[in-house]
Amino acid sequence: MSREPAGENKPRLSRRALLTSAGAGGAGLAIGALAHAGLREAANSRAAANVVDFYGTHQAGITTAAQDRMHIAVFDVITEDRAKLIALLAQWTAAIAAMTQGRQIGSEDPASGSYDAPPADTGEAMDLDAANLSVTVGFGRSLFLTEADEPRFALAGKLPEALITLPHFSGDQIEAQRSGGDIVVQACADDPQVAVHAIRNLSRLGFGTVQVRWSQIGFGRTAKTTKAQATPRNLFGFKDGTANLLADDQDLLNQHVWVGADSTDQPWMVGGSYMVTRRIRMQIETWDRSALREQENVVGRVKSTGAPLSGGEEFSAPDFTMAGSAGPVIPVDSHVAVLHPSNHQGVQMLRRGFNYTDGSDVLGRLDAGLFFIAFVIDARTHFVPLQTAMSTNDAMSEYLRNTSSGLYAVLPGISEGQYLGQQLFES
Amino acid sequence: MSREPAGENKPRLSRRALLTSAGAGGAGLAIGALAHAGLREAANSRAAANVVDFYGTHQAGITTAAQDRMHIAVFDVITEDRAKLIALLAQWTAAIAAMTQGRQIGSEDPASGSYDAPPADTGEAMDLDAANLSVTVGFGRSLFLTEADEPRFALAGKLPEALITLPHFSGDQIEAQRSGGDIVVQACADDPQVAVHAIRNLSRLGFGTVQVRWSQIGFGRTAKTTKAQATPRNLFGFKDGTANLLADDQDLLNQHVWVGADSTDQPWMVGGSYMVTRRIRMQIETWDRSALREQENVVGRVKSTGAPLSGGEEFSAPDFTMAGSAGPVIPVDSHVAVLHPSNHQGVQMLRRGFNYTDGSDVLGRLDAGLFFIAFVIDARTHFVPLQTAMSTNDAMSEYLRNTSSGLYAVLPGISEGQYLGQQLFES
Repeated sequence: MSREPAGENKPRLSRRALLTSAGAGGAGLAIGALAHAGLREAANSRAAANVVDFYGTHQAGITTAAQDRMHIAVFDVITEDRAKLIALLAQWTAAIAAMTQGRQIGSEDPASGSYDAPPADTGEAMDLDAANLSVTVGFGRSLFLTEADEPRFALAGKLPEALITLPHFSGDQIEAQRSGGDIVVQACADDPQVAVHAIRNLSRLGFGTVQVRWSQIGFGRTAKTTKAQATPRNLFGFKDGTANLLADDQDLLNQHVWVGADSTDQPWMVGGSYMVTRRIRMQIETWDRSALREQENVVGRVKSTGAPLSGGEEFSAPDFTMAGSAGPVIPVDSHVAVLHPSNHQGVQMLRRGFNYTDGSDVLGRLDAGLFFIAFVIDARTHFVPLQTAMSTNDAMSEYLRNTSSGLYAVLPGISEGQYLGQQLFES
Repeated sequence: MSREPAGENKPRLSRRALLTSAGAGGAGLAIGALAHAGLREAANSRAAANVVDFYGTHQAGITTAAQDRMHIAVFDVITEDRAKLIALLAQWTAAIAAMTQGRQIGSEDPASGSYDAPPADTGEAMDLDAANLSVTVGFGRSLFLTEADEPRFALAGKLPEALITLPHFSGDQIEAQRSGGDIVVQACADDPQVAVHAIRNLSRLGFGTVQVRWSQIGFGRTAKTTKAQATPRNLFGFKDGTANLLADDQDLLNQHVWVGADSTDQPWMVGGSYMVTRRIRMQIETWDRSALREQENVVGRVKSTGAPLSGGEEFSAPDFTMAGSAGPVIPVDSHVAVLHPSNHQGVQMLRRGFNYTDGSDVLGRLDAGLFFIAFVIDARTHFVPLQTAMSTNDAMSEYLRNTSSGLYAVLPGISEGQYLGQQLFES
């Protein structure tokens, strides 16, 4: 499972050729410029290994088979200059296109780099391949309207009805400083250094235009997202996402995830989606001290196999009517009963969350849980009712604490030559 | 680079056989007990893939080829009962032996699990292989002596002279609550879920005896530790650890890392080592805005190739005497000049650190850097002089802030049947 940086397979730089001038002593500019050139050459001649397409009808990172690691950041725009915002989105688009190809940010012309300027790319992903990096961008309601409902960036008329302010749910302990925000950027990759590199370099390009409001690192996808993936386990030790909408089922995606012309008041959103984020801290210590019986009754599934308590295998349909000695075998307040699509008019989400661990809190308890991410066609129908049911009826809620909440309009995909958000700004 | 959980390759459970009784309705205990049995069977019949040996003269996780991820936790012992501490160390030893084999914690006898008790293992690594997990345990000075120099656990006479309190270094901004502590546990694996699972389950076993003082997650090893590994890059974008002591050079290890009978006042330490930890926050934003010339002069190496500024290739010896137009080509205050072994009587450390990113601080700046870990034969000769030189002379210090510091006596390795720390407690 350990692997060598992919750079090992890349064509070797002729370091000697680059550095012969060093022996003469007057290193300075000569070496620097040459080294810089070498850097670009090396970076850009790498084979395009583990590359996820950036361009398309939809953005990557939604139906892309979930990668192993995530770094998500939400930015607030600190200028009110629309042109400056658009310029940044264009810069970001070019940078994302390069990074998702496993290339360095910046010109491919080696002569363009100056030894007396900061490097265009921070460099820590230089020897790594693209690691299936996807970068997904969305806009929060606050980009369109201030809290006082004043328009920003002349976008008030472009606010989709579906981009609501999420309500307070029972038991929520939301921290404002790690919730909401103007622009979400979700970077996922199979190598954390690649995901972190992407967020860091986008932040850097945004200096003076945006600033990070909050960010989160995640690991270990928490939902099966394609037929080929096995169902992973969350930090409760249970398989998670067994009943997830699969990213390879096109009909269901059109019904539940992708915004179409007939499902939005804003034509620019066609091809987009809505992203719901919730940082759900798990009360790990309490959970770990509860009996296996309690854990399985809370989830409604067998811990080892993921099968519903009504029997069968992991993918067997749960039988909510099967009677046990004291009520249904699958308790009515179990997670699977409260949230199963069959109990919500068939509504489905494309879940794509990650586990997180942020060390320990002041009491020495693990600050860990699920960074929940779901993509839906409309949060009003596809998230709010389910979260309401969960926060009021679900036995699992006792072990959870929601500390962050966000809803973002995920931009439609673009073609080469376009910039992210162009459909909005030029509509 | 994406991979499926190794559980896909394991012998399939006969879920139908396990769950036939479910159809009868009286699920409860029957399913639970069987499922629990199935869990154990599945977990323990997995092929021993990606396993690092736990037993040996030295603990694993030191010369083990550095894995991709780390979760380190430091515990304080909250009992003064020596027998209770020893009992925990024995429990930890058994748990570590199981987890490093990719097995679940707990009895291998399926009948031993009770459906009415918490599971012996939290379960989130159930379908994953061992992922080259290593767990390395060490004791801090505070386990032997209180701050008032009163003995603890009758260990005062067993305190090695080398287990000093690290001094304050120029510029240190150490946070006490993430420094020091009684027992360090470093878990490294190629899958973060496996590393986090290990720390979480050891914490859980320790409930009532120890509590977490601080912990840290790291990713992307920051030093080349074996001949076969390529040199990775740190968050400054530079190759890091080019001049590291390699874990496959036995002579150097005996000279600089392993405690021998002639290098300690405490026979129980033979086969052990000393672990220095420093959480070094990098001033990323400042660094990213500095010119390539400045960056390379600070490091003393070419960013792209890792070669010293005096020329050659990555592994060429730096020539500190080579003159440039304004002083040496490799500046005297460059990182490589200040710390190179050739400038410190040949003293070498086995560095084995990880990058970290803990999100953003209140100002929106990335809280990221290097979690420095080094293993040395004696910190008084192999760390303090180097850190003193670095904190006073190294141009890189301007971009760094040390926020955590620790020194631990790494226990010698053990054989099957022994427990970690036995050489100390029974000497």
